[in-house]
Amino acid sequence: MKSAHLLPRIAGFAALCLATAAAASIPPPPSAVDRAQNDDIAWKITEDLTTEIGPRMAGTEAEAAARKWAVERLKAMGFQNVRDEPFAMPTWVRGEEEASLIGPFHTQPLAVTALGNSGSTGAKGLVGDVAYFASYDDFLAAPDHYIKGKIVFIDHQMAPAQDGSGYGQYGRARFTGPNAAAKRGAIAVIIRSIGTDSHRNPHTGNTNFEAGVAPIPAAAISNPDADQLVRQWRRAQSIRTKETPLGYTPAPLRMKLLLTPRNLGQQQSGNVIADVPGSDPAASPVVVACHLDSWDLGTGAIDDAAGCGIVTAAAKHVMTAGQPRRTIRILWAGAEEVGVHGGRAYFAAHGNQKHAVALESDFGADRVWRVDFKLPESAKSLADRIALAVAPYGVTRGSSPASGGADIGALVRAGVPAIDLRQDGTRYFDLHHTTDDTLDKVDPVQLRQNVLVWTATLAILANSSDNELP
Amino acid sequence: MKSAHLLPRIAGFAALCLATAAAASIPPPPSAVDRAQNDDIAWKITEDLTTEIGPRMAGTEAEAAARKWAVERLKAMGFQNVRDEPFAMPTWVRGEEEASLIGPFHTQPLAVTALGNSGSTGAKGLVGDVAYFASYDDFLAAPDHYIKGKIVFIDHQMAPAQDGSGYGQYGRARFTGPNAAAKRGAIAVIIRSIGTDSHRNPHTGNTNFEAGVAPIPAAAISNPDADQLVRQWRRAQSIRTKETPLGYTPAPLRMKLLLTPRNLGQQQSGNVIADVPGSDPAASPVVVACHLDSWDLGTGAIDDAAGCGIVTAAAKHVMTAGQPRRTIRILWAGAEEVGVHGGRAYFAAHGNQKHAVALESDFGADRVWRVDFKLPESAKSLADRIALAVAPYGVTRGSSPASGGADIGALVRAGVPAIDLRQDGTRYFDLHHTTDDTLDKVDPVQLRQNVLVWTATLAILANSSDNELP
Repeated sequence: MKSAHLLPRIAGFAALCLATAAAASIPPPPSAVDRAQNDDIAWKITEDLTTEIGPRMAGTEAEAAARKWAVERLKAMGFQNVRDEPFAMPTWVRGEEEASLIGPFHTQPLAVTALGNSGSTGAKGLVGDVAYFASYDDFLAAPDHYIKGKIVFIDHQMAPAQDGSGYGQYGRARFTGPNAAAKRGAIAVIIRSIGTDSHRNPHTGNTNFEAGVAPIPAAAISNPDADQLVRQWRRAQSIRTKETPLGYTPAPLRMKLLLTPRNLGQQQSGNVIADVPGSDPAASPVVVACHLDSWDLGTGAIDDAAGCGIVTAAAKHVMTAGQPRRTIRILWAGAEEVGVHGGRAYFAAHGNQKHAVALESDFGADRVWRVDFKLPESAKSLADRIALAVAPYGVTRGSSPASGGADIGALVRAGVPAIDLRQDGTRYFDLHHTTDDTLDKVDPVQLRQNVLVWTATLAILANSSDNELP
Repeated sequence: MKSAHLLPRIAGFAALCLATAAAASIPPPPSAVDRAQNDDIAWKITEDLTTEIGPRMAGTEAEAAARKWAVERLKAMGFQNVRDEPFAMPTWVRGEEEASLIGPFHTQPLAVTALGNSGSTGAKGLVGDVAYFASYDDFLAAPDHYIKGKIVFIDHQMAPAQDGSGYGQYGRARFTGPNAAAKRGAIAVIIRSIGTDSHRNPHTGNTNFEAGVAPIPAAAISNPDADQLVRQWRRAQSIRTKETPLGYTPAPLRMKLLLTPRNLGQQQSGNVIADVPGSDPAASPVVVACHLDSWDLGTGAIDDAAGCGIVTAAAKHVMTAGQPRRTIRILWAGAEEVGVHGGRAYFAAHGNQKHAVALESDFGADRVWRVDFKLPESAKSLADRIALAVAPYGVTRGSSPASGGADIGALVRAGVPAIDLRQDGTRYFDLHHTTDDTLDKVDPVQLRQNVLVWTATLAILANSSDNELP
């Protein structure tokens, strides 16, 4: 109306330009990225899954309820070939958990949680002396008689890092510490949580025992509890219980531990899979993954409901903007936390098919800050186009090869190209595998940035040529 | 050495001045404030008490152990008349605590903790429909049939505030909500924690039931759990279970609750008291208070080991700098959290004696930002001197009358002058009455500022004249 009103006052060329502009201003249909600008799909998936299902431990009825929910949701969103591909996996569930320091100072409870696959103390619990190790390497270096018959405590100082690089290094205390301690005669293992917060919410996570090694009780205590244990340990060391020719015997730090987890044997899990069918049935698909299961302590909002929200929102925006050339396969993997059983099951069922490229979102809901590639030489310009497309959202191009996520790990190891849209992990290990992994920790603004970056990337990948990707 | 080396080069009057300065440069003995500059007494008390005793719930063996520890520590510091003045008080202890939302959505556990004086659900727990109230005033305004037979949930949105002003207003849900709900036929009360954090560590605290009102189970859930309850409540409201002429009946939100606290009857607590004897035995004492007991969930670092550390460090610095005119009486009160029994016992035993002025530190370990007075007219210049003395540490002069702390409340109500060294409460209700009240939350730099401000204030008060204070 305003333009029309002004038009008569403007003469000649200017009026012509305005008329042309008006004709050209019929807007093009919104692109996938346009559609992602105000995304609320990722938030809705995260909110709905965590609110209506909540914790969804692999192999349990809660995970089954989540799969049912997931199939309904993905169908309702218009995806095709939505199915739950079941598989069986060994299932461990938490029991009672209590720990306390019982001497030489006043008895105090510790905030403790069993690690996945922990052995049980039995209903009566156990009592033992703590053998303190300042680091995992100290533990490895210690003579066996320091360990045998003791409750091993492995300490460390993991600090937050944007790239989450502390997890691999400090995580060894959890991944392999209990097995190593069991082989050396420890009666239990307690680790300082593999986490960077200062709340009394210990971080769980899987550990594994070799075949033939009887699982011993294995648990994490929170950072404030680990601090307390260390203070008591140091004080106990200066209490002289018996003078000896070479010095004195310090007071032992005594701990009581009760953990009654159980193994339920083989139970059913499953991968929920949905497709955006591509226009070229001969073209190999692009896989975008996340995992549907979560640890039992929190509601699995950042690990990994948000990841499922992000990849699914991106696929939906690409689909709505117009059919892509390649099929987009959405994989909500089951049983990731307890041993990547879903990723292995997907590979067993589909690893013999060709895949163009695989990506996973499984590092929280904070913003993507870097993109890394592991692509064939033929995809050099493809990588450049993606790096350009995500740069406006603050994403820099990294120089490390992409590693893929856990659930696409088998594909990537088999040679499928991968791209990592790396998220800011500064806060991630404050929350990871704790009761505090809940919806309120998800920042909607950063979640939306993820969707934008994923949509921009996926739109390019799903329309890439067969000359660029396998 | 440097001055002596330079002296020959400087002639006449200048040399004389330097010589005079050199003679005058024998430093005066350090003042109390000088001694407080690098205080580590407050930290040591806080660390030692929380490490060696930990949680110290009033009336329990842990509080008794803390009193024994306190008497030993105060004697070792050189204070006089150190004693434990015992009193009896009704004792409530926590039992099992579990809560879950069991419908209409997938069952999910809630992080829950009983409020002090809560009734028990019995060992089997109870199940009921939730009656949701967005605020305490909504609850008060609701008709009885909304409440009878229901599990009342009281919601609110308490935000952090430097002066902690949310506690009184939002705290009503805890202080009087359970009693009011019991009188109206509720089967249990759940409140959103009176806290400002987003961790799954619910905030306990006392509630009270009138004589003749049978206590019902009363508990707090954490903020993330309250958020979850509210989301489920809203979703349940839109599920149409039965159409009626006026609309529809929504699905009830079902909760299961297990709380098995017990009343142990009258148990012993006590006030630990120590004096810095003044040089004038006729002068009335200055009382500096804190409380020794803590809630059972954390180690009571900010509530209130740090307060005991602060007042005791200040008294020690004043004592070491030279005997003050007035006696400084240090009161580590017992059983504050569960009904200010220690404060009342002190008043019953000593309220008939004259007290010059009373102060308490019981609001965490963050810095003092404001000073408020409630002093007689005669103390106008005294207040000015104190305001001047604390100004260098960033403490402004407030215009509200001082209210004193809980343990000196009876004294102040009886007319004893009071000064409030108000601490920054922005973080306080993130931690208050939770498992997270642990040593790592104490900032040593801010703790030391407290000691400086308290020492500066106490040095003036303890040497004030009888014309200024009673």
